[in-house]
Amino acid sequence: MSEQGTPGRIPVVEKLLTANEQVAADNRDYFAARHVTVINIMASPGAGKTTLLLATIEALPERRIGVIEGDVASQIDAEKIAETGAPVVQINTGGACHLDAPMIRRALPALPLDDLEMVFVENVGNLICPVSFDLGQSYNVALLSIPEGDDKPYKYPGIFEAVDLVIVTKWDLHPYLDFDLDRFTELVHGLNPDAPVLCLSAKTGEGLRDWLHWLEARLG
Amino acid sequence: MSEQGTPGRIPVVEKLLTANEQVAADNRDYFAARHVTVINIMASPGAGKTTLLLATIEALPERRIGVIEGDVASQIDAEKIAETGAPVVQINTGGACHLDAPMIRRALPALPLDDLEMVFVENVGNLICPVSFDLGQSYNVALLSIPEGDDKPYKYPGIFEAVDLVIVTKWDLHPYLDFDLDRFTELVHGLNPDAPVLCLSAKTGEGLRDWLHWLEARLG
Repeated sequence: MSEQGTPGRIPVVEKLLTANEQVAADNRDYFAARHVTVINIMASPGAGKTTLLLATIEALPERRIGVIEGDVASQIDAEKIAETGAPVVQINTGGACHLDAPMIRRALPALPLDDLEMVFVENVGNLICPVSFDLGQSYNVALLSIPEGDDKPYKYPGIFEAVDLVIVTKWDLHPYLDFDLDRFTELVHGLNPDAPVLCLSAKTGEGLRDWLHWLEARLG
Repeated sequence: MSEQGTPGRIPVVEKLLTANEQVAADNRDYFAARHVTVINIMASPGAGKTTLLLATIEALPERRIGVIEGDVASQIDAEKIAETGAPVVQINTGGACHLDAPMIRRALPALPLDDLEMVFVENVGNLICPVSFDLGQSYNVALLSIPEGDDKPYKYPGIFEAVDLVIVTKWDLHPYLDFDLDRFTELVHGLNPDAPVLCLSAKTGEGLRDWLHWLEARLG
């Protein structure tokens, strides 16, 4: 009996990769071949991305860490990272609200990837646009600072759905602000039940150990 | 003597309006015909846009104020505004990182514009994308909260160039954070020499009077 026209046998056309997805896949292969773990950090402007990276590099002197900095303009974040001695490259998007995989690819020759174990990508400060563009990263991490408020998962669900870890930053400001961690965690887990939620202050060091532990578990 | 081909007489083709600009112009005419002043509020997520609007509505009970709330998802901000009794309409962009003029036009029938003097548009929380889309507003205002840091004009120059007023919010947190107001003001004025920079706390009321004074001067 011919299967042609049999109900239930629907032809499937494989999803075509977009240009960005294709380059992201190439980037992922490139990182994997060099055993480099890549962490894409996404957050609002001023949530403390660079400050967390500075504290992380300082806390892990034995780890070989590189950084890709993404900003609309300026290189002030890259300059701060460079002061630690870590290899860093700045991408200026010139107006674009997110990094994309071709931007990452063009930045790679500026990093000594054969000598690195881990690369942090600090995405453009924005809770919306970066989520839609795969870069070839190993993991996605969202930062949400205490002053932004515990209601943000209602308003920006996409980023909380997309990440492997959520970090509540500027925890040292907790005494001065109304931030309900239970409510926030419940909202995050409603969108993404498996994402751990950590709290820390890169300024005082409180909670930093949990983040370092999460990172170390993801290195070879 | 024929002017044809005379050096210096270059034919000028008028800049064509984009679809968004055309609708924005229509919106602007529509507001002008009703003597409604429209203030477009732009800022990062959690910078205090809704909190400032709540304090403003409470402080100006004699003024007839309406609000258009823009968010990727949810209507929690519109619900807060509705509790004040002010007419409000929520726009959910469904993923888009900014409002545009057609969204505003579609929202207008939900507001009693003939009875209003002023409409606040609370744009989607984002320092980048909203700047590029004229809505038909009378004035643009940027909020920057103290915890975001005084370096933001370096990294997001577009918004500071585009606005008529810059407000530093969450001023009550100033004792707990390193925010150099002189540095910030200098950076803003480097991009936009004419934009006043005001500081306030919608929570404590400090500085609110300067903002109300600015607003009143822009009403009929």
